[in-house]
Amino acid sequence: MQIKALLFDVFGTVVDWRTGLVHDFAWWGARNGVRLDWAAFVDDWRGMYEESKAKVRDRGVAWIKLDDLHMESLETLLARYNIEGLTAEQKRWLSHGWHRLNGWPDAAEGLARLHARYILGPLSNGNTSLLIDMARHARLPWDVIFSAEVFRTYKPAPQTYLGAVEHLSMHPSEVMLVAAHNYDLKAARALGLATAFIPRPTEYGPRQTKDFEPSEDWDIVARDLIDLAVRLGC
Amino acid sequence: MQIKALLFDVFGTVVDWRTGLVHDFAWWGARNGVRLDWAAFVDDWRGMYEESKAKVRDRGVAWIKLDDLHMESLETLLARYNIEGLTAEQKRWLSHGWHRLNGWPDAAEGLARLHARYILGPLSNGNTSLLIDMARHARLPWDVIFSAEVFRTYKPAPQTYLGAVEHLSMHPSEVMLVAAHNYDLKAARALGLATAFIPRPTEYGPRQTKDFEPSEDWDIVARDLIDLAVRLGC
Repeated sequence: MQIKALLFDVFGTVVDWRTGLVHDFAWWGARNGVRLDWAAFVDDWRGMYEESKAKVRDRGVAWIKLDDLHMESLETLLARYNIEGLTAEQKRWLSHGWHRLNGWPDAAEGLARLHARYILGPLSNGNTSLLIDMARHARLPWDVIFSAEVFRTYKPAPQTYLGAVEHLSMHPSEVMLVAAHNYDLKAARALGLATAFIPRPTEYGPRQTKDFEPSEDWDIVARDLIDLAVRLGC
Repeated sequence: MQIKALLFDVFGTVVDWRTGLVHDFAWWGARNGVRLDWAAFVDDWRGMYEESKAKVRDRGVAWIKLDDLHMESLETLLARYNIEGLTAEQKRWLSHGWHRLNGWPDAAEGLARLHARYILGPLSNGNTSLLIDMARHARLPWDVIFSAEVFRTYKPAPQTYLGAVEHLSMHPSEVMLVAAHNYDLKAARALGLATAFIPRPTEYGPRQTKDFEPSEDWDIVARDLIDLAVRLGC
């Protein structure tokens, strides 16, 4: 293995979206007098993600940014929870919760160590502006941002992995995908990329049903991003 | 003006390509026993740039990365200068001189100050891997890298400016192009972007014939990137 660049899945692998969103929304709810089970709300929101992406990926609609998919599903959910009368600015603030997520506790140190030796970037379904804001918020030391938006299709479409490799001017075997999700690594391996699995067993909270373990013999299985850095000699 | 992001032309505006390449090549020539007027060689190389880009932009050939255009013109130039017998690795090292450029003396401080308040990124004809390597080499604090490669056409094609604005999820008036070249600012202004001119009167050495002065009333005319930071309240 002659790895030169590491690409990261972001939601779940690098940032703890569930804890972050529940915290953000509960804070907002307390200030605005909206009481509800925010963990359930966030879980329901995330539950609408696959269908949203599939609409773009499989059904041939024109490209839609993840921010806009998030806003669509948020509107549906607000109606379902009978939350009415929010201003456009309030809805925008809520739907942009994904821009304000924090890294898992090992992210800052792990990425800093990896950055000394490797080119780092997200390869994420988040749109570019979301990933920029998140990187500034959580201080993620990306050298480049590869968003599905660049390739106008969502992971696990092959164009996303191969497009990033092409932009890096590298061979697929020189690029490693780091992810907490087996499906993502499976797609990357099929295209010749190296693979690293980081389990995040609390990502989905009590609803989590999978990705506790590697489903294949990925090139590296590491406890967290600091452990990954150690295994990669950083 | 409510500027949220600054996009930078890179070659000439942020990095001093001529001094960097001449230094690099003279060092290489001394080590490899190749004696010639490296400043003339570099000027000739850069002189082939417009035609290379135009080939892609106007003549409808498939996309070609700037690295590959540089290699093509380097091969032509080596033959013209009767430099023979170089290995593929040596040619690659020379053509990748653009990956190893240093910032102008004001770049590090100016960009660091601007980064505290604004989203920063290049908007450059350099390919993505070139811009990544340069940013790591010269420690340029980009939040995102917008290469012509993302939009598969070279500046000043409108898709490059508008594509970057779209990826930023901003209105054109929220984005400012910073450049040492009037033609670049003219193209950006026509599309609604804000504009800042930084003169670089030594960019082309003794061959420089233009861009000593702003050709229009750009939104900001600053002495250098530190002065730009001051004018933007950083």
